[in-house]
Amino acid sequence: MKLATLKDGSRDGRLLVVSRDLGLACQAQDIAPTLQRALDDWERLAPALEDRYASLNRGAARDTFPFDPHQAAAPLPRAFQFADGSGYMHHGKLMMRAFDTENKIDFQEREPMMYQGCSDSLIGPCDDIEMADEAWGIDFEGELGVITGDVPMGVSAREAGACIRLVMLVNDVSLRNLIMPELAKGFGFVQSKSASSFSPVAVTPEELGEAWRGGTVHLPLLIHWNGVEFGRVNAGIGATFTFPDFIAHVAKTRRLCAGSIVGGGTVSNAEPGVGSSCIAERRAIERIAHGEARTPFMKFGDRIRIEMLEKTGQSVFGAIDQKVARVRAS
Amino acid sequence: MKLATLKDGSRDGRLLVVSRDLGLACQAQDIAPTLQRALDDWERLAPALEDRYASLNRGAARDTFPFDPHQAAAPLPRAFQFADGSGYMHHGKLMMRAFDTENKIDFQEREPMMYQGCSDSLIGPCDDIEMADEAWGIDFEGELGVITGDVPMGVSAREAGACIRLVMLVNDVSLRNLIMPELAKGFGFVQSKSASSFSPVAVTPEELGEAWRGGTVHLPLLIHWNGVEFGRVNAGIGATFTFPDFIAHVAKTRRLCAGSIVGGGTVSNAEPGVGSSCIAERRAIERIAHGEARTPFMKFGDRIRIEMLEKTGQSVFGAIDQKVARVRAS
Repeated sequence: MKLATLKDGSRDGRLLVVSRDLGLACQAQDIAPTLQRALDDWERLAPALEDRYASLNRGAARDTFPFDPHQAAAPLPRAFQFADGSGYMHHGKLMMRAFDTENKIDFQEREPMMYQGCSDSLIGPCDDIEMADEAWGIDFEGELGVITGDVPMGVSAREAGACIRLVMLVNDVSLRNLIMPELAKGFGFVQSKSASSFSPVAVTPEELGEAWRGGTVHLPLLIHWNGVEFGRVNAGIGATFTFPDFIAHVAKTRRLCAGSIVGGGTVSNAEPGVGSSCIAERRAIERIAHGEARTPFMKFGDRIRIEMLEKTGQSVFGAIDQKVARVRAS
Repeated sequence: MKLATLKDGSRDGRLLVVSRDLGLACQAQDIAPTLQRALDDWERLAPALEDRYASLNRGAARDTFPFDPHQAAAPLPRAFQFADGSGYMHHGKLMMRAFDTENKIDFQEREPMMYQGCSDSLIGPCDDIEMADEAWGIDFEGELGVITGDVPMGVSAREAGACIRLVMLVNDVSLRNLIMPELAKGFGFVQSKSASSFSPVAVTPEELGEAWRGGTVHLPLLIHWNGVEFGRVNAGIGATFTFPDFIAHVAKTRRLCAGSIVGGGTVSNAEPGVGSSCIAERRAIERIAHGEARTPFMKFGDRIRIEMLEKTGQSVFGAIDQKVARVRAS
């Protein structure tokens, strides 16, 4: 099934069930007021949501209305966790080669590279990415992310797949010119990984059919920057670590609560001509080829669109389609 | 005022108002069901909670009952954020000197060292710290933490103090033998900073009176490990950065939502005889003095108690008083 969160002026929005073709939505207030509440009691509530989804798809649901992604918040507008991995070795190797940190490649091959990200104020699919300064080096990162149920401490990667409740697209907004000084301090990303954006709908793994296997989605991630195709990288290719690995990695020393978001890292593979899922990777390729990066980072007013299509052309998650804007005083 | 969260079988527990002497509690369900809900609408709800607190302290509240810290969850059993700083330069310098990373001291003097921690499954004050393996190097870290209201992006340190809603004690549980390999990867702490524990009550800054000034609490943090005093370090001494600095640091590139927890770092100062607030610091002192660390990390069954007393001897936040236990299968 496909679920979304309608902006209604509240902090957590209102849970919606969305039709397979993303054309129609209906409320699910009588089942769960918010997506977090549905996740908190998933075993009991998911069957009723699945029933509503089936009704919606066969035209039998009541009180339906057109689904408008501009009215959608992030599926979880605030979440209790966002832990993001870096699953695609090609991306990691390019970045390390460009930045002379190749001594770290062996880490990446042995176990997942992950960071604890911020999750308290997540951005809706069509909302502006608000920033104060273009000089921070504003970049997008096209990723997949999953939302987990409760995960026991010490779960194995084999068991962790069963903890995945929903799959989404993520724009892991990154401030490239803040990353190097911040990572040099040694404590990871705080300022340089600001709030991320999420697709209009979150989708159960079952809904993905045969595209969901091996713990990831086997479809190309389409990235358009200012209307020009930038990447078309298949998320099913080149992933050294996938979502069950990442969940097991985080859960080694603690439980994860239902509603934890786990990211899979910038989708990247070595196949020629597929492009990249972030500007930093293209700049790394340029640096390796020409000795210097040529593509600038994003400017205020720039648009970024991230989407994934089924083989039929149907959008799976809807599109993240947003622009970078100067932050308004609040 | 003093607020707590009663374990009631739900994920977020039930909001309680607790008397100044921590002896009595009363429900606040009619005002807000949970602490997060109170924080979500603080301007409107805090006055009613303050009224209830005043009634409780003068013996006029209804349906009071003895406050039992063993029935208390963390004030926020799950939070949307935990960003932890390292405010006490003495601790940082000792650690860096012991671990030959003194090249990083200049960073720490220039701007706050902070990491994004996990916040999805926080530990109650008297609950066990459950771990799978003593070999991870289980350590406590005695800290103060604050809970913020909504914080605008780009807030200045001067303005950020007004965003502090509540103050707590924190045991920032750290797995020392996992830290070095994890930090070497460059992405910060994931496995090596597991879930933290919090004091029985969270207290408004006003409640702290003259002990709250300069953005921190000017009282000694008492640490007892297996009943033996380990530290008595005054949190008002030696803080290069305090809570307003940390909040402004995190908020440079994004908003923080109400209910964000910001930690102030292991309390530490150079005064002789006051001890330390974590084992790692004592080990660093031993390594510098004797060329080797002598104090082992915690074992299963070890107890850690963290408390702060007013000059009158009254406990401010109640005590974190917990033991390390082998994780139960879940």
